[in-house]
Amino acid sequence: MVLSARNGIKGKVTDVKLGEVMASVKIEVTEPGVITAVITRESAEALELAAGDDVEAVIKSTEVMVAKE
Amino acid sequence: MVLSARNGIKGKVTDVKLGEVMASVKIEVTEPGVITAVITRESAEALELAAGDDVEAVIKSTEVMVAKE
Amino acid sequence: MVLSARNGIKGKVTDVKLGEVMASVKIEVTEPGVITAVITRESAEALELAAGDDVEAVIKSTEVMVAKE
Amino acid sequence: MVLSARNGIKGKVTDVKLGEVMASVKIEVTEPGVITAVITRESAEALELAAGDDVEAVIKSTEVMVAKE
Amino acid sequence: MVLSARNGIKGKVTDVKLGEVMASVKIEVTEPGVITAVITRESAEALELAAGDDVEAVIKSTEVMVAKE
Amino acid sequence: MVLSARNGIKGKVTDVKLGEVMASVKIEVTEPGVITAVITRESAEALELAAGDDVEAVIKSTEVMVAKE
Repeated sequence: MVLSARNGIKGKVTDVKLGEVMASVKIEVTEPGVITAVITRESAEALELAAGDDVEAVIKSTEVMVAKE
Repeated sequence: MVLSARNGIKGKVTDVKLGEVMASVKIEVTEPGVITAVITRESAEALELAAGDDVEAVIKSTEVMVAKE
Repeated sequence: MVLSARNGIKGKVTDVKLGEVMASVKIEVTEPGVITAVITRESAEALELAAGDDVEAVIKSTEVMVAKE
Repeated sequence: MVLSARNGIKGKVTDVKLGEVMASVKIEVTEPGVITAVITRESAEALELAAGDDVEAVIKSTEVMVAKE
Repeated sequence: MVLSARNGIKGKVTDVKLGEVMASVKIEVTEPGVITAVITRESAEALELAAGDDVEAVIKSTEVMVAKE
Repeated sequence: MVLSARNGIKGKVTDVKLGEVMASVKIEVTEPGVITAVITRESAEALELAAGDDVEAVIKSTEVMVAKE
């Protein structure tokens, strides 16, 4: 399966915090050091996300903004 | 000004492609090598984005998905 | 690879319209009949999307709204 | 009122799970069987969403990705 | 039809710019003066958007960021 | 730092509700009166958002829909 959203940043899960509906996943990456993904608690559980997992942060291009000095 | 969207990945613009309404901006980053941002042509022009610019790809956490092997 | 965005609706591509930066992809599904996906032209070309392709429309849960009579 | 986001998938609410801030709404549809919408708890309460409700899952085209084998 | 996305800002269309796939719609509002919406060209045509139209800019709460000095 | 997302609506925070993972921020604006932003609890705490704060609701143009009578 190939996905049209092709911004994929490889990293390692360092923390998973479960709320009742949502979950926050911290992913350690080379730059900027850490990326935060907020997904449903259900997905976090279905993927059995846990610290140490090798994952990819996936982002659709239309969701990326650009900041310039 | 501090923004709540705090996933910011530093990089250098390598290409800006202008459509009539939208613009695609290629940003060279350490990992995954390149990030694609799609913003309005108007914003690309307002920021005077050009190859060589130091920028930051900014992404709201709710827009980040997680993929796992 | 398993993706956290698990709303996946199977269908068949009926039309791909390429703009300079973006592309509109029409996907025939059981209900509501047709789904429109707007992705980058680059992704549409990388996936070689064409009428007749079996695909899946993938949507992150945080992007789904609910309308009620 | 006509909305520009015109991907509307009709279905029936099967479950509403309320968190403190967010709510997860399960909508039974023909294909893929179930769609998950994450909205604010406030909206879920304002719409008085409950199992059995006929609703529509509404999605902006720019939020739809395409996956292909 | 009541929609879960309840951030609705009333205004008047001042400009519609059509690209091949996307369309940019300028909406005059009290504050900040103008809001830009990027929707599909197809939706802009289906709604027959034109300068002078009374419309509402509709935004899902999860898409709103907060910036603070 | 200039951001490509340039829909910025000035207002005053009237309420911050913290969930375990997410936070809902109410911002009083001229029109439509109140805007709801859903951000991570972590960002709400990092920005030390509290009632009375002068803030800006920031929205990427691709996230704005248009509704017309």
